[in-house]
Amino acid sequence: MDKKKTLQGRLINAPVVERSAQPGARRAFLRGLAGASAALASGGAAAGFTPGEPLPVPDSMKRLGKPVAAQPYSQPSPHEANVVRRQSPGLTRTNESSIAFTPLQNLFGIITPSGLHFERDHAGVPDVDPHQHLLALHGLVARPKRYTMEDILRMPSVSRVHFLECGANTGMEWGNAAVPTVQFTHGMLSCAEYTGVLLSTLLEDVGFDAKRARYLLAEGADGAALTRTIPLAMALDDAIVVYGQNGEMLRPENGYPLRLFVPGVQGVSSVKWLRRIEVGDQPWHTREETLHYSDLLPDGKSRQFTWIQEAKSVITSPSGGMTLLDKGGYYEITGLAWSGRGSIKRVDVSVDGGRNWKTATLQTPVLPKALTRFRFDWVWDGSPALLQSRCIDATGYVQPSIKQLREVRGTRSIYHNNAVQTWQVLASGEVRNVQV
Amino acid sequence: MDKKKTLQGRLINAPVVERSAQPGARRAFLRGLAGASAALASGGAAAGFTPGEPLPVPDSMKRLGKPVAAQPYSQPSPHEANVVRRQSPGLTRTNESSIAFTPLQNLFGIITPSGLHFERDHAGVPDVDPHQHLLALHGLVARPKRYTMEDILRMPSVSRVHFLECGANTGMEWGNAAVPTVQFTHGMLSCAEYTGVLLSTLLEDVGFDAKRARYLLAEGADGAALTRTIPLAMALDDAIVVYGQNGEMLRPENGYPLRLFVPGVQGVSSVKWLRRIEVGDQPWHTREETLHYSDLLPDGKSRQFTWIQEAKSVITSPSGGMTLLDKGGYYEITGLAWSGRGSIKRVDVSVDGGRNWKTATLQTPVLPKALTRFRFDWVWDGSPALLQSRCIDATGYVQPSIKQLREVRGTRSIYHNNAVQTWQVLASGEVRNVQV
Repeated sequence: MDKKKTLQGRLINAPVVERSAQPGARRAFLRGLAGASAALASGGAAAGFTPGEPLPVPDSMKRLGKPVAAQPYSQPSPHEANVVRRQSPGLTRTNESSIAFTPLQNLFGIITPSGLHFERDHAGVPDVDPHQHLLALHGLVARPKRYTMEDILRMPSVSRVHFLECGANTGMEWGNAAVPTVQFTHGMLSCAEYTGVLLSTLLEDVGFDAKRARYLLAEGADGAALTRTIPLAMALDDAIVVYGQNGEMLRPENGYPLRLFVPGVQGVSSVKWLRRIEVGDQPWHTREETLHYSDLLPDGKSRQFTWIQEAKSVITSPSGGMTLLDKGGYYEITGLAWSGRGSIKRVDVSVDGGRNWKTATLQTPVLPKALTRFRFDWVWDGSPALLQSRCIDATGYVQPSIKQLREVRGTRSIYHNNAVQTWQVLASGEVRNVQV
Repeated sequence: MDKKKTLQGRLINAPVVERSAQPGARRAFLRGLAGASAALASGGAAAGFTPGEPLPVPDSMKRLGKPVAAQPYSQPSPHEANVVRRQSPGLTRTNESSIAFTPLQNLFGIITPSGLHFERDHAGVPDVDPHQHLLALHGLVARPKRYTMEDILRMPSVSRVHFLECGANTGMEWGNAAVPTVQFTHGMLSCAEYTGVLLSTLLEDVGFDAKRARYLLAEGADGAALTRTIPLAMALDDAIVVYGQNGEMLRPENGYPLRLFVPGVQGVSSVKWLRRIEVGDQPWHTREETLHYSDLLPDGKSRQFTWIQEAKSVITSPSGGMTLLDKGGYYEITGLAWSGRGSIKRVDVSVDGGRNWKTATLQTPVLPKALTRFRFDWVWDGSPALLQSRCIDATGYVQPSIKQLREVRGTRSIYHNNAVQTWQVLASGEVRNVQV
């Protein structure tokens, strides 16, 4: 493995897919780095040097660099080529109906750069010409209309930071600890500043029938014609017809030029490449809300229409696939918490598998239905540890353990697994996905 | 001009550099689009259609799209190829000591995507190997140290949303209305979620001499060896040694792998490719704080060390280079406000050159030393208009008019122009940069 590709943000976090390549070389290199650093908690990190000793002048100071705007739209450093979205090997049968996972282990703060936002397509990414694209609003409305993108872009807008999580996120963990890294356990999760027109503004513009209307149908312009039912109350609350993501137009794989965004609700409801919204008086029971995205319960019944993504959290560092090299060293435990019901109130961290809990620091501002970054100071004593996080949202709901969740939901579900995640730190420093 | 490149986010905002190419064709196209839309304020936008009339099925629904993660690190739509950073023609003599401006007219919300963050280099962009890079802390400290990137990445971190503005932003406007678009009047301005280690944490780690220390020197590892003096109080307040920007590692042109970030202070102080911080007892008076980044006053004296970027705002849409096509139509006036002293308290908008002011809506959360997005509903009556925004920050400071600013600062400065910007809307709908 190329040495230059191992520094991915923090600690030592080569995803397992690449870890097997030349583990020896990588480990040796990383131990070398670690040898140069004493622990912050035990007297300060970094190597000392003698006052007056001349600092070496790096080659980069001896010449001109690349000209300004060499890339009119800039790109990450080639040294970060390892920080990418990944498909889970063997998870899906085709690449058009598949998933690209966000590398949560490499990310900081709460904003997911759009280049690393997770992607779930049902029939691949269509090329939608924004000059031809139309959004139709029809059904139980007084004035059915078709909007061009220019129409939409001229309307009153809002921008809000929200998380987006696929209902199937962490779905592989129902039975046992199935995948090695947080990219694959929790990487169908991203967060961005979204901009668009409130769906309520459009519904007022077409004059929806307030007496009869109860549900909407949203349809995408992709080959799957993906359709989902949305309750009218959610649509009128805070749903947004979105064109902007992190300041710029949506990326193609996230719905360019227009998508629905239903904050706090499983991702499939935020229909991409949005082409029509129909107002009706009952749910449609489409393919994606009957065959899929329903929850198989222990008694064999299937629960339909789980809208909200309940409160959930995960430690992103240290996490599976990383190696802690410095026994007795300081480590910042950090991760993400979120709730489809509103804001995160508190996150607790345990390093002993849930016997003792301490409260983590939350990064402000804490925003409703957005990722919240938490941080926790930890000095690893070199003995095996079980790292967990557990969040509580503004409604008082406490994130369940996998045991608690299985008691209600069984082990054969795919969707809506919001259980506490456990990362085991071995005496060797290796971190792996376990269930306790 | 290619039709597909005209839709850039909102309204009609082809930058002037491309506007002259085939203005006739572009205008005809845009008028065509506008003809299909009635004004929202006058009864609703968009074209109606008959209930029951079948919706045309776009080609994108008849086939599979591109596979998931076709790009492991995704890119903007090819339809958005016009939304890029740009150099102002003729502004600088070389491309290594130059500026790439952010296309503010195309952006939404407050987050600037890192691909469009402005860039100011003094000797081009160096290629810094993160595995070789060292940050030295020395001078009046008890324990001088050299930190590797691994050392820095393991330390306690913070993430904060802050604006960054070059001290020379809007510098071309001191004498008269010099450039045609908001990209070139105000585009040395961006905003991101930055992650790193508080500089105060590092200073504590090396044990700075609290009795003698008054200033720091920060130096970059580029060919310019860019150096700036930072007052110790600012360093201990909220300065951050940053490695993360919008969730991922810094882009090369913004200091990869490590930069200083001094919130609220002109950009040059946030030294990129940071290689050393020296603690001292007086300012260094380096090249970039004597020859440059000083303010020439009317009496011929030059004012050194203007740290803070004072409160400032600008309307980004409609703005210079756009054309309003729909007389009597609804337009959302929107823009950005920011202050190096803290939060924005209020933004007022005038459509008559400052005779009457009304208060705009601020997008929440309003964060200290961050961009704040404001929005204002406007129905254009088709007559000429003069659009202005004026902000007030939490200290009560009111953004000055260009007339007020010139009375104190004269007309020959380059730096620290925070005057109210005026966009003139002609009866033809064309918008241009003027001073009143």
